[in-house]
Amino acid sequence: MDTVADPKRIAVQFTLINWNLNREKAESLLHTLSDEAFENEVAPGRNRGRYLIGHLIAEHDEMAGLIGERRQYEHYDALFLHSPDRSGKELPSMAELRSVWSELHERLTAYMTAMSPEDWFGRHSRISAEGFVHEPHRNRLAVLTNRNVHFGYHLGQLALLKG
Amino acid sequence: MDTVADPKRIAVQFTLINWNLNREKAESLLHTLSDEAFENEVAPGRNRGRYLIGHLIAEHDEMAGLIGERRQYEHYDALFLHSPDRSGKELPSMAELRSVWSELHERLTAYMTAMSPEDWFGRHSRISAEGFVHEPHRNRLAVLTNRNVHFGYHLGQLALLKG
Repeated sequence: MDTVADPKRIAVQFTLINWNLNREKAESLLHTLSDEAFENEVAPGRNRGRYLIGHLIAEHDEMAGLIGERRQYEHYDALFLHSPDRSGKELPSMAELRSVWSELHERLTAYMTAMSPEDWFGRHSRISAEGFVHEPHRNRLAVLTNRNVHFGYHLGQLALLKG
Repeated sequence: MDTVADPKRIAVQFTLINWNLNREKAESLLHTLSDEAFENEVAPGRNRGRYLIGHLIAEHDEMAGLIGERRQYEHYDALFLHSPDRSGKELPSMAELRSVWSELHERLTAYMTAMSPEDWFGRHSRISAEGFVHEPHRNRLAVLTNRNVHFGYHLGQLALLKG
């Protein structure tokens, strides 16, 4: 197959470009803003920055599982996926979240960069082989496409923390 | 070609699903919130809802041009792409923006739904035929993928207008 014109490779390429752009924006905020700034709400009465960073970690760790990489932060699900901010549960410190962010995003990006176009067009872990025959668009690249939009959604909110 | 397993068709399918999800979220906000609510800032000192709706219209009208559909709201560029909110320029009313939103998004979605997978994997209007040989990922579907993330970014902010 001509790799230059391979549509699978092309679709993977531009989707990973968007992932990397989102990741750069997030890491620029993490680099620029203090721990204290992440204690602020993105708007009055809304989620705090610290909660949203944990929420993105939990979503991206869940995505890791969907595309065949190991999950390492499932204990975040109860805090950041199944509970709202200020649920009464104690959240990890910004120091912990910064460290987990780096570990997860470096490992996940390396994993995704190494995946073949065929891997990306294979089924994700929550659809059965039978279901995938009828819904071949429910592949791993669709998961990343969806998470990129979700990533952008919360980046738009986190950007409001900037002074 | 087997249409079920055509990777171009599959990539178009899941990308349009994300477009439609974003559009539903935006139109739910437009349906739910009053004109007055769109006069509010998404956070203190930040863009007003009305400006962000105009900004999304301008971005999506520009996208129309990139993927081969006619542009109809280029006069919005100066207001919503090249000027920040409260630039001193008079912005269209919410009544006008609501009407333009519907016209543009109905026409654009119909146009995109009718595009063939080959159309989507063709070059967008800002890259030359020569450049496209070397960068075949700069296609129309890449434009939509990128705009979906941008759409999500501002939807995350507009959602803060909800009471």
